[in-house]
Amino acid sequence: MKFSFKNDYSEGCHPNILQALLQHNLDQQAGYGEDEYSLKAKELIKAKINKKDSDIYFVSGGTQANLIVISSVLRSYQCAVSAATGHILNNETGAIEATGHKILSIETEDGKLRPSDIIPVLESHRNVPHQVMPKMVYISNSTELGTIYQKKELEALSEFCKQNRLYLFMDGARLGHGLTSEISDLTLENVAELTDIFYLGGTKNGALIGEAIVINNPALQEDLAFNIKQKGALLAKGRLLGIQFMELMKNDLYFDLAKHANQQAMKIKNALQEKGISFLADTYTNQIFPILGNELIEVLSESFEFFVWKKVDEESSAIRLITSWSTGDDAVNRFIEIIREKL
Amino acid sequence: MKFSFKNDYSEGCHPNILQALLQHNLDQQAGYGEDEYSLKAKELIKAKINKKDSDIYFVSGGTQANLIVISSVLRSYQCAVSAATGHILNNETGAIEATGHKILSIETEDGKLRPSDIIPVLESHRNVPHQVMPKMVYISNSTELGTIYQKKELEALSEFCKQNRLYLFMDGARLGHGLTSEISDLTLENVAELTDIFYLGGTKNGALIGEAIVINNPALQEDLAFNIKQKGALLAKGRLLGIQFMELMKNDLYFDLAKHANQQAMKIKNALQEKGISFLADTYTNQIFPILGNELIEVLSESFEFFVWKKVDEESSAIRLITSWSTGDDAVNRFIEIIREKL
Amino acid sequence: MKFSFKNDYSEGCHPNILQALLQHNLDQQAGYGEDEYSLKAKELIKAKINKKDSDIYFVSGGTQANLIVISSVLRSYQCAVSAATGHILNNETGAIEATGHKILSIETEDGKLRPSDIIPVLESHRNVPHQVMPKMVYISNSTELGTIYQKKELEALSEFCKQNRLYLFMDGARLGHGLTSEISDLTLENVAELTDIFYLGGTKNGALIGEAIVINNPALQEDLAFNIKQKGALLAKGRLLGIQFMELMKNDLYFDLAKHANQQAMKIKNALQEKGISFLADTYTNQIFPILGNELIEVLSESFEFFVWKKVDEESSAIRLITSWSTGDDAVNRFIEIIREKL
Amino acid sequence: MKFSFKNDYSEGCHPNILQALLQHNLDQQAGYGEDEYSLKAKELIKAKINKKDSDIYFVSGGTQANLIVISSVLRSYQCAVSAATGHILNNETGAIEATGHKILSIETEDGKLRPSDIIPVLESHRNVPHQVMPKMVYISNSTELGTIYQKKELEALSEFCKQNRLYLFMDGARLGHGLTSEISDLTLENVAELTDIFYLGGTKNGALIGEAIVINNPALQEDLAFNIKQKGALLAKGRLLGIQFMELMKNDLYFDLAKHANQQAMKIKNALQEKGISFLADTYTNQIFPILGNELIEVLSESFEFFVWKKVDEESSAIRLITSWSTGDDAVNRFIEIIREKL
Repeated sequence: MKFSFKNDYSEGCHPNILQALLQHNLDQQAGYGEDEYSLKAKELIKAKINKKDSDIYFVSGGTQANLIVISSVLRSYQCAVSAATGHILNNETGAIEATGHKILSIETEDGKLRPSDIIPVLESHRNVPHQVMPKMVYISNSTELGTIYQKKELEALSEFCKQNRLYLFMDGARLGHGLTSEISDLTLENVAELTDIFYLGGTKNGALIGEAIVINNPALQEDLAFNIKQKGALLAKGRLLGIQFMELMKNDLYFDLAKHANQQAMKIKNALQEKGISFLADTYTNQIFPILGNELIEVLSESFEFFVWKKVDEESSAIRLITSWSTGDDAVNRFIEIIREKL
Repeated sequence: MKFSFKNDYSEGCHPNILQALLQHNLDQQAGYGEDEYSLKAKELIKAKINKKDSDIYFVSGGTQANLIVISSVLRSYQCAVSAATGHILNNETGAIEATGHKILSIETEDGKLRPSDIIPVLESHRNVPHQVMPKMVYISNSTELGTIYQKKELEALSEFCKQNRLYLFMDGARLGHGLTSEISDLTLENVAELTDIFYLGGTKNGALIGEAIVINNPALQEDLAFNIKQKGALLAKGRLLGIQFMELMKNDLYFDLAKHANQQAMKIKNALQEKGISFLADTYTNQIFPILGNELIEVLSESFEFFVWKKVDEESSAIRLITSWSTGDDAVNRFIEIIREKL
Repeated sequence: MKFSFKNDYSEGCHPNILQALLQHNLDQQAGYGEDEYSLKAKELIKAKINKKDSDIYFVSGGTQANLIVISSVLRSYQCAVSAATGHILNNETGAIEATGHKILSIETEDGKLRPSDIIPVLESHRNVPHQVMPKMVYISNSTELGTIYQKKELEALSEFCKQNRLYLFMDGARLGHGLTSEISDLTLENVAELTDIFYLGGTKNGALIGEAIVINNPALQEDLAFNIKQKGALLAKGRLLGIQFMELMKNDLYFDLAKHANQQAMKIKNALQEKGISFLADTYTNQIFPILGNELIEVLSESFEFFVWKKVDEESSAIRLITSWSTGDDAVNRFIEIIREKL
Repeated sequence: MKFSFKNDYSEGCHPNILQALLQHNLDQQAGYGEDEYSLKAKELIKAKINKKDSDIYFVSGGTQANLIVISSVLRSYQCAVSAATGHILNNETGAIEATGHKILSIETEDGKLRPSDIIPVLESHRNVPHQVMPKMVYISNSTELGTIYQKKELEALSEFCKQNRLYLFMDGARLGHGLTSEISDLTLENVAELTDIFYLGGTKNGALIGEAIVINNPALQEDLAFNIKQKGALLAKGRLLGIQFMELMKNDLYFDLAKHANQQAMKIKNALQEKGISFLADTYTNQIFPILGNELIEVLSESFEFFVWKKVDEESSAIRLITSWSTGDDAVNRFIEIIREKL
């Protein structure tokens, strides 16, 4: 059987989580997120972000988190702006528009947004009331291309948003990977300080399901509980989400898992760079996009599963490799061996 | 610590499910419901309903299932009709209306709908195009009051819907309990035969999360996959849903668990009836609504948690007791002892 | 040809309006409501309500006004409450629900809402976040049954809404008729003082199209312009709406037209009462609901068009007669003659 | 006072319409589009398109027509594709997204769509069910840039849509201008033959309000009446729309008015071309975009109103001039005189 580098949600969950599910299985708990584990998990997150007044809710997945947050925050005529590679633009079957909101797309090189990217959009949307009003900046960290925000960049964006009365929302489906990248100087506390709302992704970092939405801006806190219920995201057995985040936040397991995924990707990246291979984007997280010859891609395909991401020319394409909290050394070493042998 | 009869989702899940999660945890699987366990679970359900051409999708909870099904099936100006006690009317924060659809409410004694209940609604909604068009009949089995549909009743309703070009949708959040009631003559195969669409509830019958939507009417099958994704209900690790239904459907575990819950409720019911206690509704599933004196309610409250459902007069109220797949003999016996002692 | 008492929008518009359309036809004006006539019309309304800070917008019709106002004011999980006879509940093809909002229906005798009607609804909707949050009280004046609010009643309701943080919205499709009823002690200034938002209906009172939305609560003013555009209600030639309200508000033409309609209805009502006829509702506006024998209804049908509103018993039914700004004495007298002759 | 070339909706309406409004003003008519004038207008349009089985509805404006048509035709997860200049993308405050549908934007030179523009969009939207499904092609004729479709182009697009199961919808806010352009070889009959649905714009061609939606594809006809009512677009006095289209369609007045507007624009265009002026787009309808020196623009601004459309370089900009059914020779000649004098 082939080993899959297709994504970071191919396996189940970290054993600690299963262990905790077993241990607490027959304890009776209140429903709908009022269980002890959810309360404990929220405490752990608040301690980590050092913000007592943030509100925290657990939902099942990223698309769900995105559509609930965006539709909860925006008024009907307001819209989000996103890098053209944004998950909400391409991979969510119009989930945001289905809640009534346009997303304005901005082409960028690296999947990141800077104030200079957003200014022209603001300037071309001032024909009141004939146009939507940009009101939220949606970013991902790490991005859909595996790139990350540095502290200075996030500070500049946050400041820009405040000046322009825009909400800053960070999609953190892979926030663990972003923050534990070897080149990142950003902490979870910084993220909470600099965004109005963000989420900590569990699904792609060792949980079965689960994203922890953290609302730092008090003005946005009131509506969320209702919207979570109304969109069908409030689990009767909220304990399932609570237990997972309780375990992930204990002793920084969440960050260790992400760091592991990053490291496995970096091993492969380094091996490829040694052989002079170039990449579609310069990434330091668990996603890498090496450009390989078609023949080599075919050879690798015999032992591994991965996506061929983009044709580069007649002879070569970029492939996407994603490692996870669970990617072992065996698979990584086997991949590197083939690379070394064939290049 | 008090034992809770407040609902059937206070505990975790059946041990077989945890066992399977452990066993398959590190197997790499395709995402988004294409995993082996989901495929196996669908096979088991299809065999049970004896319909090869039904489509099956797994989602996380009841409100989610309801809003996806109803918004997927109805055109913008079409509406559902529901008994006034329907979960979609009272307990889902306007989730259906949030997708754009009105629900017409019908007062009934027992939470069930009959053709004679629906006819006046059809007759008062013929002012085209100034009124919504009733197009779906929404029923629950067992109902929110714990009552159930007999085969003849469902046949009559199904026939009526066909004649009036209405879709029949059964909310099966507690379908296991409905079908295994000691007075039920309905099978899962009947349900699949007589409805356009229904779901098998897992959350209230031993799963951590999960409802299995079964679409029997081919005309309604095309849209659902898109709508599940668009509403944020498509889990990346669909394996979590697949494994649970795979285990529940094996050797009829699903039905055994529901039957157990029903039996525990019936033991209490019988003990109360022996003492001449009357009930708000005559139920044979895992929900019972005995009318008790306020003093007795207070005594019971010292040892048990439950909802006081409805004030009946100055001296007495109906309480709601719900048993689950996991309710043990200890709790039931203790409850009965107190009853016998105090009455 | 039969004269029609079916509604108050069977004819064109008051001649003054046509005259003004002719007079200003070739003047070039700014689009989208920035024309001189709209500005003038707003001034006239503000002078009449004696509130400089209200915002005023003109839209084409009542359903449009209702759906724009309600969807603009409410957050996604909030709902309106309405008397069961409310236009938004029965006659708008689910227009409000189509914008995502539930309407809670309250049964009342006379189509009016009082605090005592609303209290039980508030009390039964406190299961946060599992239920919609009642946030707006929707009333009509005159109501769909032709009844009206007295000043004390509106004051009590307004006070109740403030205490319970509910917005009070008055559908004024027939506000002229309500205010000029011989038993009304309410003024337009009172209405502006006591509601958060209301509209002055033109369509049913001598305009071709047009309702003037008046927003008194500053907190609700910001969004409306965007929502009017987004819902397709912003006319390029806003002058058409402006000219009509400019003419209607000049010299109180608006109120004279409504008073005339009321008076014509009262003439018929008095003639019927003289003959001992009873009515479905005790109304003093341009809608009356006399209960007549089937034979007489048939005779009247030979000369007049009207709706048979409700079967009362085997021998008699209530009919609905509506008079308009344009209903002449001929038709009224002819109707009365037949009544006097046949009864 | 300055003459305005800002748009084609600065004046009232063609005198024939006012005359007809006067003539029929006191005739009692059925409401909601069932009046005699609406029926007559529909007959005239059907005769002109030579299609007995098309359905026709009148609504008030273009944004309203667009949002009703698109939301009526598409299922929740389906989207429209549009040229980047499309009115629905930039000038409707997210009206389409507010009904739940994404619009995919395609960059084109001239505001027109060709099959080769659409193919890449189809190819990049095949990740079922993670992406929206392109299902409608939205085009304008004349376009927002004043360009038009030739018969061969529309045939090719229509054929492409059929092959790819896409609906073809033509926004005809300026359809009269498109069809009467001196270079057009397309007829209204062709348009009805080649599109699934289109509308004839009245607002920008001599009506006070009004667009006539024509549904040629029978599969799309059933829902529209309900959606028009639900979106607040069904006028009680539908006679206002009926009378206007009755007059416009009599003796081809509609086309004469558009042709006049085109001719006035062409006079200016020719005068500018004689002086060697170039244009942003090569148009033959009532919109022209000449590129003029800043000094000349300033001079013209003293006598005329128009939009400065786009800065071309430091010394010059393109301006937009729009003529209408009502633009007289005086204004045109005065403009030309200044041009000749200053260039």
